[in-house]
Amino acid sequence: MSTAAPTPRLNIDNINQNVVRAQYAVRGELAVKSELFRAKLARGDADLPFNQVISANIGNPQQLDQKPITFFRQVASLLENPKLLEHQDVLLKSLGYQTDVIERAQWLLSQCQSVGAYSASAGVPAIKQSVANFLERRDGFPADAAHIYLSGGASSGVNTLLNILCADKNSGILVPIPQYPLYTASLAVLDAVCVPYYLDEARLWGTDLEAIKTSYEKAKAEGVDTRAIVIINPGNPTGASLPEADIRSVIEFARQENLVLIADEVYQTNVFSGEFHSFKAVLRRMQQEQPGTYDHLELASLHSISKGMVGECGHRGGYFELVGFNPLVEAEIYKFVSITLCAPEGEPSYELYNQEYNSIFNGLKERAFALHAAFSQMEGVECGEPQGSMYLFPTIKLPAKAAEAAAAEGRTADEFYCMRLLEATGICVVPGSGFGQREGTLHFRTTFLAPGTEWVGNIIKFHKEFMDQYR
Amino acid sequence: MSTAAPTPRLNIDNINQNVVRAQYAVRGELAVKSELFRAKLARGDADLPFNQVISANIGNPQQLDQKPITFFRQVASLLENPKLLEHQDVLLKSLGYQTDVIERAQWLLSQCQSVGAYSASAGVPAIKQSVANFLERRDGFPADAAHIYLSGGASSGVNTLLNILCADKNSGILVPIPQYPLYTASLAVLDAVCVPYYLDEARLWGTDLEAIKTSYEKAKAEGVDTRAIVIINPGNPTGASLPEADIRSVIEFARQENLVLIADEVYQTNVFSGEFHSFKAVLRRMQQEQPGTYDHLELASLHSISKGMVGECGHRGGYFELVGFNPLVEAEIYKFVSITLCAPEGEPSYELYNQEYNSIFNGLKERAFALHAAFSQMEGVECGEPQGSMYLFPTIKLPAKAAEAAAAEGRTADEFYCMRLLEATGICVVPGSGFGQREGTLHFRTTFLAPGTEWVGNIIKFHKEFMDQYR
Repeated sequence: MSTAAPTPRLNIDNINQNVVRAQYAVRGELAVKSELFRAKLARGDADLPFNQVISANIGNPQQLDQKPITFFRQVASLLENPKLLEHQDVLLKSLGYQTDVIERAQWLLSQCQSVGAYSASAGVPAIKQSVANFLERRDGFPADAAHIYLSGGASSGVNTLLNILCADKNSGILVPIPQYPLYTASLAVLDAVCVPYYLDEARLWGTDLEAIKTSYEKAKAEGVDTRAIVIINPGNPTGASLPEADIRSVIEFARQENLVLIADEVYQTNVFSGEFHSFKAVLRRMQQEQPGTYDHLELASLHSISKGMVGECGHRGGYFELVGFNPLVEAEIYKFVSITLCAPEGEPSYELYNQEYNSIFNGLKERAFALHAAFSQMEGVECGEPQGSMYLFPTIKLPAKAAEAAAAEGRTADEFYCMRLLEATGICVVPGSGFGQREGTLHFRTTFLAPGTEWVGNIIKFHKEFMDQYR
Repeated sequence: MSTAAPTPRLNIDNINQNVVRAQYAVRGELAVKSELFRAKLARGDADLPFNQVISANIGNPQQLDQKPITFFRQVASLLENPKLLEHQDVLLKSLGYQTDVIERAQWLLSQCQSVGAYSASAGVPAIKQSVANFLERRDGFPADAAHIYLSGGASSGVNTLLNILCADKNSGILVPIPQYPLYTASLAVLDAVCVPYYLDEARLWGTDLEAIKTSYEKAKAEGVDTRAIVIINPGNPTGASLPEADIRSVIEFARQENLVLIADEVYQTNVFSGEFHSFKAVLRRMQQEQPGTYDHLELASLHSISKGMVGECGHRGGYFELVGFNPLVEAEIYKFVSITLCAPEGEPSYELYNQEYNSIFNGLKERAFALHAAFSQMEGVECGEPQGSMYLFPTIKLPAKAAEAAAAEGRTADEFYCMRLLEATGICVVPGSGFGQREGTLHFRTTFLAPGTEWVGNIIKFHKEFMDQYR
C-alpha cells in the first residue's frame, strides 16, 4: 500500500499530448483579451479608447445583430411545447403564427414523436428525406436519404469522417492553407498527418492544381499514405467561391490518385459573386459526360444550419451526404443525431421568410463591400472582391519596424497588428497565422457580420496611425 | 499519372480499426430486429405473435409514454421564439404559462442573447452558476462555476475526459463490469486499456474493494499505467444505488493508488431505495474529517438532463464538475456547449412541476416493483430489489439444452434467450453479455419505462414456455 500522493495524478506532461498540441492551434490570446475588454466595458470602466468590442473574429451571426428567421423559430417553439398546438386559434389570431408553421410542426412531431427522445441512429428518417429533397432541388440529381447522416453541426461530421479515414500515424489528409483550424486540430488529436496545399491568392484564393500535386508528391515521397482531399467552398477564411473549372480539376485529380473528396460546403448560400457549384452536382455531370470514369469516386459533402442566412450556430444542426462509399465502411460511420429544419416556399409564411432572408443577405453583402472598399483605401492592404462565406482575408504589408516591434514582443507581425487593432478600436479579428499562410506573407481574417459599417472607419483610422508609427 | 481506380479508396480493412472494433460492442442485432418487427406491425402485418414492440432496451423515456415536464418545455418554447414574450397577456391568460416561466426565459435570454448563437467555450456563465447553485443545495458544500463544464449530454463529457486521460496504448481506466458500453467503446476508439472490475451481485451489485484491487494489481503486473477509476452510481445496467461505505472505500483506494475518480451520476434522481450519495459530498466530508489526506484527489462527476424525471435525451444537455484538477490540465479540457435548464421551487409553476415530477417518479417505481415481482415468480431468475436508475439486471439460470440450442445458432445463451423473448412477445431487452458479466453467469437488462404493466405478464408466460421447452 503506497502513501498519500502529494500531487494530482494528471499534469500537463502526462495527459494526451495530441490534445495538448491540438489546443495550441485553436485557442487565441486575442479572443481572450477581447472578452476582458468586453467585461471591463460592462463594468462601466471608461479608460479604454473605444466603447464597444466588435467580434469580427468568429462567424456567430446571432451574437451580433442577425435576427433568427421567424419561420424556423416558430416551428421550434411548437416542437418544444407541443401543448401550444391545442390552442391553434390563439397561435393564428394573436401570436402571428401561420397555418404552414403549425402543419410543419405537426408533421415533424408525427415523425420524431418528441424532441426530447433519442432519435434513430443517423437521424429521424423523415428529416433525412427532407435533406434529400433539398439536394435534388439544388443539384438536379437524385439524392438518397439512406446516405445522409444528420450531425451536431458540420464540425461533428468532419470529426466523424476524419476518425474513419485516419487509420494510423501515417494516414494523411490534404487540407487547404489557409484553412479553418478544425481540420488541423482534429488531425492533431488523431495523430494523423495534415498535408497542406496552398490556395492561390493571385486567383482570388482558388485551388491551384500544381500546388496540390506538389504537396501530394512531397508527402508521398516522405511515405505518407494520403487518403483524402478537403476542399472548403465557399472558403473559410478566404471568402473565395470556386469556379466550376477548379472543382472539375480537383475531382479529376482525386480520380487519378484515388483520393476521397471531402467537400465542406457550409457557406453555400453565402455567395455574393457568381454562383455556388456543389461538388456533388459537378461530379454527377462528369459521370454523365464520361460514363464509368468517375464511378468509384467517394465524396462526402457537408452542410450546416449554423451559416447561410439561417445562422443557427447554437442549435448544432448539420448533415453529411456520402456518395460512392463502400457499404461496409459506411456501416462503420458513427451516427450522429440532430434536428434540422428546412425552408418553406409558396406557403403563408413564405413572404416573411423571403423578406427576412433577403434582408440578411443584403446586409451581409453591403457590409462585405463596405469593408472591401475600406481595405482598398488602406496603404499596403490588398483584398479581392467579396465572393462568398462570411469572411474577407486581406493581405497586409507592414513596415520593417513593425516586424521588429513584433519580434521584440515574441509575436508574429500579423498577431502584433491584430493585437494593436484590438487595443485601439475594440475590433477583434484573427491573424492569418491562425489559418496558415505562405511564408513571408501576412493576412488577417474579418467577418462582416457586425452590425453597421461605422466601425469600418475605425479600422482605416487605426491602420493609418499604425503605418505612420512604424514607417 | 495513374489510371482510373476500379474500387473506392476505403474498405473495411484500411479504415481506422479502432472504430471497427468499437462498433462491434455497441450495435445490437436485437435492436435492429425489434425495429423490423415494429415496421412490420406498422404495415398491418398480422403474422407476429404480438401486436406491439416494447423497447425495454434503451433508457429513452419520451419515446415511450413519459411526457416532458411542462415548465422546461414552456421555457424552451420562449427561448426558441422570443417574439412570444411580446404577448405576455396571451401567454398568461390563454396558453397556461405562469409568470415564473416568463421570468426564467427572460433571464436566460439576457444571459445567452440567443439560443442560435455559439456560447462561451465551457457554456453560458449564468447557466454554469445555476448548476453550481444546484450542487451546493444538493451537497451542502460550495461549488465553483469555474470548474463546471456544460456538455452535449453526459456522453460527450465522458468522451472529453477519456480523451484527456488516455495518453497512449498503455493508459488504463478501471471500469465496472457490468457497465454501460460507452466506456469500452470510447476506450477502444482511443486504443487505450479497459481494466475491468466486477461488481458484487451478492451485495446488490455494490462495489467490491477486493475485486477492484485484484484487477488493478493484475493490470499493473501487465505493465498497464492505470490512471482513473469509473464508478456508475446509480448503476447502469445494474440499477444499484451505492451505500456511503462503498463510496468511501473507493475514494480511499483512489487516494492510495493516486487514481482520478470519474463518478457517472446521471441517474441520481432515480433512487427508489435509500438515498443518493454524491462522490463530491462524500469526498468533502472525508476531507473535513482528515484534513490534508484527500486534498490532492481529482474527481470528475457527471450529470445529464437525459435521465431522472426530466428525461430530455433528445436535448443533449449535461455537465461535468472538476475537483482538484491541475489548472494546466483543466485548461486543456475541451469545452463543450449546451443549454441546461434547472428546476423552479415555490413559484407559480411549482405545483404542476411537482405533480408531474412525482407522477413520473411513482410510475417508474410502480413498474420497477411490478417487474421485480414478476421476476421473483420466474423459475431460475433472481433479481435484487429495485434501488435506482431505470434498469433491472436479473440473473437467469437456463437449462443445459438451452445453452446447446444457443451454441448451435452461434449465440451466447443470454442472447439466445433475449432473441426468443423478442420473437415471442415483441419485448426488446439487452443480453448481459453486452455489458459484461462474470464467466458462467447470464443476465439481461430491462428498463422499466414502457407504459403499463401488462407486458410484464407476457415475460412470465414466455419464460415458463421457454423453460418447459428446453428443460
